[in-house]
Amino acid sequence: MTKITLNRKIGQRVLNGHPWVFANEVNRVEGNAEAGAIVDVHTHDDKFLGRGYFNPKSQILVRILTRKKNEEINDDFFLRKLSEAWKHRQQMGYKENCRLIFGEADGLPQLIIDKFNDYLVLQTLALGIDVWKDSIVKAIQQIFQPKGIYERNDVPIRELEGMEQKKGFLSEPFDTNIIINENGLKFHVDIANGQKTGYFLDQQDNRRHIQHIVKDAEVLGAFTYTGTFEIHAAKYGAKSVHGLDISESAIAMCNKNAELNGVADKCKFECVNAFDVLKTWVKEGKQYDVVMLDPPSFTKSRATIQKAITGYKEINLRGMKLVKPGGFLVTSSCTNLVQPDLFLEIIQMAAKDARRQLRQVTFQTQSSDHPIVWGWENTHYLKFLIVQVL
Amino acid sequence: MTKITLNRKIGQRVLNGHPWVFANEVNRVEGNAEAGAIVDVHTHDDKFLGRGYFNPKSQILVRILTRKKNEEINDDFFLRKLSEAWKHRQQMGYKENCRLIFGEADGLPQLIIDKFNDYLVLQTLALGIDVWKDSIVKAIQQIFQPKGIYERNDVPIRELEGMEQKKGFLSEPFDTNIIINENGLKFHVDIANGQKTGYFLDQQDNRRHIQHIVKDAEVLGAFTYTGTFEIHAAKYGAKSVHGLDISESAIAMCNKNAELNGVADKCKFECVNAFDVLKTWVKEGKQYDVVMLDPPSFTKSRATIQKAITGYKEINLRGMKLVKPGGFLVTSSCTNLVQPDLFLEIIQMAAKDARRQLRQVTFQTQSSDHPIVWGWENTHYLKFLIVQVL
Repeated sequence: MTKITLNRKIGQRVLNGHPWVFANEVNRVEGNAEAGAIVDVHTHDDKFLGRGYFNPKSQILVRILTRKKNEEINDDFFLRKLSEAWKHRQQMGYKENCRLIFGEADGLPQLIIDKFNDYLVLQTLALGIDVWKDSIVKAIQQIFQPKGIYERNDVPIRELEGMEQKKGFLSEPFDTNIIINENGLKFHVDIANGQKTGYFLDQQDNRRHIQHIVKDAEVLGAFTYTGTFEIHAAKYGAKSVHGLDISESAIAMCNKNAELNGVADKCKFECVNAFDVLKTWVKEGKQYDVVMLDPPSFTKSRATIQKAITGYKEINLRGMKLVKPGGFLVTSSCTNLVQPDLFLEIIQMAAKDARRQLRQVTFQTQSSDHPIVWGWENTHYLKFLIVQVL
Repeated sequence: MTKITLNRKIGQRVLNGHPWVFANEVNRVEGNAEAGAIVDVHTHDDKFLGRGYFNPKSQILVRILTRKKNEEINDDFFLRKLSEAWKHRQQMGYKENCRLIFGEADGLPQLIIDKFNDYLVLQTLALGIDVWKDSIVKAIQQIFQPKGIYERNDVPIRELEGMEQKKGFLSEPFDTNIIINENGLKFHVDIANGQKTGYFLDQQDNRRHIQHIVKDAEVLGAFTYTGTFEIHAAKYGAKSVHGLDISESAIAMCNKNAELNGVADKCKFECVNAFDVLKTWVKEGKQYDVVMLDPPSFTKSRATIQKAITGYKEINLRGMKLVKPGGFLVTSSCTNLVQPDLFLEIIQMAAKDARRQLRQVTFQTQSSDHPIVWGWENTHYLKFLIVQVL
């Protein structure tokens, strides 16, 4: 097996458990490993550090899969890892739907698996994990005996690893339009064409947090996507719910979801640019009891972080101004580039500009089936905040 | 009415809504207000800023009660404030038990009111709020028609304000040993003799967060006080629960509470010094699936903050070492002197010393009936964390 030896002087990150070995941390490569192969990583003084997958074309030369010298990477390894991950999800109370594997946080870098009741959807985002797809599918079959497995590898990042974008069945074909249960509600999931793996499980616990504040309220939801927060609001007793999204297909799905839950009479979904519409409504002096914002990430890169800060601040300022005194703002941010402290600062800036005082109701992260590993900043990406706007 | 005029150059704090006016921010006092009286506060250029209560013996010369010039401080004022606070608690889902008034955060500085089903317990911690006790009691009577009202003013801080420590009935006398329902469980509350107002409501929502992780687990709870977390654990399906507290009376209450909930067979409560015992057990190599720590605040003053840091770190290090690989640590901190970021840093230091990696399950604050006002650091005091310890 190819052996990678690290430089003498490297940061504590890898030694402390982080799975990424950067090319500039490597002293020498002995062997002829091809891209995607399993290699051993040793410290400068030749102690075994770990075993992982190799990609000479990536800045991250190795992503470590195990720190145990006698642990082979094979079918059993993946069965063990997936079983452990499933046990952990069950320990946190997840049954029907959950993110089963959250990449690095589950010790399987660049692998994403979402479980939607009897269906599993996966993404293999690096070459070194993609080559194990058969083992992963076998493990899923063995643990869950699912009705279907699907890959949503239609993700541009794969091209950076020299792989093609693709999607399709990894089991017998099945109807990819399914229905899931969440918090006592039902939602359509379009496994083949929805965003990412078809549905955002990362807010499934947070959606329950709006339960009491929306009672008898006039609710506005912007960036509603398929309407999950809005339909929760309607079911939790909102007087009226108004949802906005720029995508026609998302709005169509909102209406289907409202029908499915018997709340269509309370809900109105509109295909508009929420940014513009909120600006207009602020000018018109519209007011809601509850305003919910779940905007896109605004940036994918640290270089343009200021763009994200400006975007979040501006949309939250508009949202806040639409909240009646004493009403509530429900606001999210889904990029790890804006860490929690910065997000709170941005909201505080918006409050200052709006001359409103905030009382916190709750501040959450992504649901715990997307575990945050301490010290690995990019595993903490979602912020979910409810504040009363005085 | 006495008029307080502020200096020209003062911080933005008071202008931005904080209710405290420090003596060194005041330019002049015109009038003969006595300690406890209501006074008007004006800016240096004679604009009305607010109205509040005065105490020339305190560093905080005025605590503002209203920013509205035409709002009088009288019976109606307190009725209005208590009604608003109750509405807010109901909007957050509280019914039976809640902190009704959380001092400054509810616009009523130094007033605490806890509602335990049909009983209300209050604390008036400053002279200027104590003089309104009759109005407050009247408002409580009018809103709740309660079975009893009690004051727990046996608090040393009152002496700094020139008041005596006292406790007793503010309604017809009643049996101060009551039972409350929380999360489907029952707990004895000793209104007259329990800590603070008799019971810690600030963890009532957090206690539900242990629901799944304690299933079939061997659970250790240290600083258990009256056993609420531990009895939740037993009810949520723990295999065994072992609770530790240094107070004989607390342990007696633990046993009563375990009996009350039919889980006495699973629970063992011991009157010991948890600090010492945990140290011994680490040496002996004891291991639990779940370790819960809810230690005291270690310090009351910023001057001895290092003492708190050392205390929290040491107890969490011991706790962590007692967690089986893959098990869970449930840990709290109840002082505002250790803010959330510092608390997470302390836990990270403990993890480093224990050579354990942490995956976050949840990170919470006090329950939302103790609202956090943004920018008012001391309203955010409780940290509640669950991590998986790998």
